[in-house]
Order: sequence, then C-alpha cells, then structure tokens
Amino acid sequence: MKYIVIDTLGSDQGPKAILDGVKEVLENNSDIGFIIVGDPKLIEEYNFPKDRIKVIETYETVTNYDNPVEAFYKKDKVSIFLALKEASENDNTIGVISSGATGALMVGSIKYLLDKNRTRPALAAVLPTIDEGKCTCVVDTGASIDVGPHQLVEFAHLGSEFMKKLYKIESPRVGLLSIGSESTKGNKLVKETYPLLEAEENINFVGNIEGSKALDHLCDVLVCDGFSGNQVLKVTQGVASNLIREIIKFGKKSGKENEAKMIAGHLISLYDFESSGAAIMLGVKKTVLKCRGSSGAKAIVSACQILINLNSNKTYFEEVFDK
Amino acid sequence: MKYIVIDTLGSDQGPKAILDGVKEVLENNSDIGFIIVGDPKLIEEYNFPKDRIKVIETYETVTNYDNPVEAFYKKDKVSIFLALKEASENDNTIGVISSGATGALMVGSIKYLLDKNRTRPALAAVLPTIDEGKCTCVVDTGASIDVGPHQLVEFAHLGSEFMKKLYKIESPRVGLLSIGSESTKGNKLVKETYPLLEAEENINFVGNIEGSKALDHLCDVLVCDGFSGNQVLKVTQGVASNLIREIIKFGKKSGKENEAKMIAGHLISLYDFESSGAAIMLGVKKTVLKCRGSSGAKAIVSACQILINLNSNKTYFEEVFDK
Repeated sequence: MKYIVIDTLGSDQGPKAILDGVKEVLENNSDIGFIIVGDPKLIEEYNFPKDRIKVIETYETVTNYDNPVEAFYKKDKVSIFLALKEASENDNTIGVISSGATGALMVGSIKYLLDKNRTRPALAAVLPTIDEGKCTCVVDTGASIDVGPHQLVEFAHLGSEFMKKLYKIESPRVGLLSIGSESTKGNKLVKETYPLLEAEENINFVGNIEGSKALDHLCDVLVCDGFSGNQVLKVTQGVASNLIREIIKFGKKSGKENEAKMIAGHLISLYDFESSGAAIMLGVKKTVLKCRGSSGAKAIVSACQILINLNSNKTYFEEVFDK
Repeated sequence: MKYIVIDTLGSDQGPKAILDGVKEVLENNSDIGFIIVGDPKLIEEYNFPKDRIKVIETYETVTNYDNPVEAFYKKDKVSIFLALKEASENDNTIGVISSGATGALMVGSIKYLLDKNRTRPALAAVLPTIDEGKCTCVVDTGASIDVGPHQLVEFAHLGSEFMKKLYKIESPRVGLLSIGSESTKGNKLVKETYPLLEAEENINFVGNIEGSKALDHLCDVLVCDGFSGNQVLKVTQGVASNLIREIIKFGKKSGKENEAKMIAGHLISLYDFESSGAAIMLGVKKTVLKCRGSSGAKAIVSACQILINLNSNKTYFEEVFDK
C-alpha cells in the first residue's frame, strides 16, 4: 500500500472539503491509503477503512500572515510541517498535498525534503495552452520570489525534468518570460539569465517569450522569477474567469442563455483551475502539491491523481483529462 | 489649429496603416492638424489638406534590437526622436503618437519632454475590468523595468493624476500588484513599497492586489514595476485572444457558429486591444501615446481621440466608448 500524506488544515473551505476528496480517492483506488493530518474527531466521522488510513493529530496551522521560518522553529505541531516530516521519514509515502500557506510549505519542504545540490525548491504550474491538450509548465509561480540568474537556470532544469517525466516530452523547449521576444529585451535578471540558458547543456532554450504568448505553446517550460510567474498564473485565472462570467451575463441579456452556458462550460473544461490548479513543488525528494486555498474536493481528487500517476509512471493526461 | 505629432515609421504594418488612420481623423475633426514624420513621397499620395499638415522628412528608424541611448546620440534623423523634439519645441502640438520601439520612445521622452522633478516617465495602460465600462490604469507596463520603491510611489501619483483627469475620479484607489492581498506578501520591492504608499499623502492606497484580481476593479490605479506590469497587460491580451479563438472554434464544431460569433464579438468589444491598446506615457510635458507595433488604422484613430479628449478636457469614455 502506498500512502498520500494530506494536510486537512489551511484550506479556506475547511477540512471537510479536503476529506470529501479523500473519500472519493479511497473509493476509486484500492491500492492507495492516506496519512491524514488534522482533527481526529472530524476524520472519524467519515468512517474511512481503518487499514488504509493513519491519522496525525493536530489543530495547529499557520496563515499567510505568519512568518514561516519563525513558525517552523517556534510551533511544533503545525499541520503542514508534520505532513512534510512524515513524507521525509516514511518510505511508503508517495507525496504530500496541502492547501495551506505557500511560505510555510516552502520552508517545510526545504527543511525536510530538499534535493541535494538544490538551493531551494520551485513551485511550478501546468497551464493549458492554445494547442488543445498541450500544456506549458510555468516555473516558478510564487515560491522563489527574489532570485538570481543561476536560480532561473535551475528552474529550467527542474521544469525540463518534470515535463519529460509527466508528459514524456523528449527535449522540452524552454522559454524565458520577458517583455519582448528579442534577446535584448528584459529586466536585469532576464538579461543576465539569457546567455546562461543559451550556453547551458541539456537545455533546449528557445529564447524570450512575452506574456501575450505565454500560453501559445511556444515552449514546454516557461522560466521566470516567482513574482512574475505568479502574475502569469493568476492573471490567466482572473481573465479566464472574468470572460466566462461575461459570457453568462451576455447570454442572459441576449436571450441566448443556453448557447452561452454551453460555450462557458467548454471554456471551463479547458481552463478548469478547480481541477488542474495544483502547483507542483520541484526540486524535492517527494512530490509536494500545493492546492489553492480555495480548493474543494474536486481539486483534491485531481491532485491525488497527479501523485498516483507520477508514482505509476503514467502521464497526467492519460488519467486526468481522458476520464 | 492644434497639431498631433505622428511617427509613421516603426509600425509592423508599415506607414500606410498609420496614414489611413490620420486620414480618418482629419476627415472627422476639422480643428485638428498633423505633423507627420516620415517619407514625404508616401504622405503626398494621400492628398491631405495642405493647410492642416506639416511633414518632417526622414527614413531612419530604430528597432527593438538597437540600444536606444546609443541611437539617440549617434543617429540624428530617427523618426521617433524627431517627433518628440517637435512636440517639445512647438507650442501648438497636443501630443505625440508612435508605434515604434518602446525603449527609444522612453529615451526620447526623457531627453525632450520629462517633467521637472521626475526621474523618468512611466508607461500606463488602461484596461477594462469586470465592472462594465470601468477601467483600471496599470502603471508601469514596460517603460521602467528595474525600479525602486520610490519610483513605484511616483507611479502611484502619476496614475492617480491621470485617472482624475481622464475619468474624473475624485480620489482614485491605488493598489499595489503583489502575489497575495496580505500586507506581508510580495517580493523585496513590493514589501519596501507597501509602507511608503501607506504613509504617502494624497494617495488613496487600498493595499496589495494579486494578479487574479488585477481586473476586478478593486482599484483605479494598479502600481507595479514595468516587467510585472507588462505581464499583466500582455497575459490579459493573450488569454482574452486565446479564449475568443477557442469560442469561434467551438462554435464551428458544435454547430452554434452564429451564437459563438455573437459572443466572441461581444468579448472583442470589451477587450478590444486594437482600439484601446495604446499605452500612455505619464510624467511628461506633452501626452505621448505608444501604440502597439501591430497597430492598424483603428488603433491610430483611437489614440488620436485620446489626445483630442485630454486636450479638450472630455473624458475618454464620452468620446471613444459612446461612439
């Protein structure tokens, strides 16, 4: 039996949304168990099969307002840290899922799970592109904010390895997020990184990519600092969501409600951040998935599926999108 | 007669796209003339009324690959620089329009038109939000790339003044682009800027805004460094354009082509970057509008209308959107 370690605290929707997801995964995957971190009384209510779950009792969490390093040293029962510690110590675990504070997840991952030779992990997001069924992995999306050029080169390697593994792409094309496609365009960081990526062995560097083409599938891995990558990820989510709302509104006004709903539904299936919104920690020994704070059961199920696929060497698409 | 200085070189679509726009503006605005920078032979073909145009002859331009500072000192006939010089010296001009290289426009604006007390201009873009008819001014969007906290405070003032003037907003709400709404979130620059904006007089600071809410009209002015702002602007354009293409494709496949076209048309009218895509240089003595390199006649007409409105103290909406 392989176990997924899951942190039930830290989600905006409360532990039940997470436990609903766990229930569904247990029902559909007989060879998977869970190590559930949280309130045992609440977990007991679900009557999960006793032989497939283990509970780590805690009620303590950290918020986005807490200093994660301070929390790590001062609070010894924080759910996110207990989950990561368990994954580092227990060989039967295949990964960790949390919807909690990114900073704490980062600090805990560094302390317990960081790969040798890495300075810090990166948080990647796999986004849908204009080529149906094709994705681009944006790295970093918010874990490593103030970074230097050598860290961006590291992100290029991490993203390439990940896309090779999850999507079986032989030589992933790596793009560098910039403000224009020309090699001379960019901020100081991008200008310093460009020649390094050009010279780097085992990186299929395709040059600068501007934001308007970030999701045009011109690259398989889009490298950027965590602040800019967070903008790419979240602006995409925001604009897609605003446009979808606008379509529904327009449908009502124009008497084409059904067609509008059909089109909106199609776009939601493509840009479905509820089910594909998990960010993936790269550069760590076990796979760590960060779901959005607002994640519901569906997001949790999808995150578990990614862990199961990575562990069984199936591609993400084979299991998640073809369902 | 008030004159608009227009650079006809530097557009990806060639000078004719620009001159087609000039023609339309001349036909619809009897009190506006043009100072046209470019190839006199080409301009002559249009038979513009002689008393309303003046031509500055040149064939020289700079590309995004040129170093703009070097170009400024070594090339003395560059269209973009000649246009800005004319605006600085001729009291009858109301502004400058160019689709050329942003870097060159920036350097020329600093040399000829920079306001006293400003370190450098900012490039703002006015983007549509989820509140119909309401916009947010993003500043900077690509002119000032590697900036410090005091420059972001300056952007807040420039954006506030601009939104007061163009949209008659009494006390524009200023947001700071970050990776979360909490005051503790952000990169080094954002964390240093936050307390400065909080303490700043005459700034209605409403806190951090994350990318997913950049266009939710939570603020009237969104302050950010030029690299991140460029991502907000261009990712918005890219995602909107990808979704609109997807709607058309889906319409064809599902036999709902007409409804899909209707919905796509509605979204295009809201997110119409061809007509509202001009970026506005702030912190300069004359209004300088930077159209996208791909701008056609429609974008030029719209940019001229902004200049005419700003000059006549009308709001942008009164003239552009209500037409």
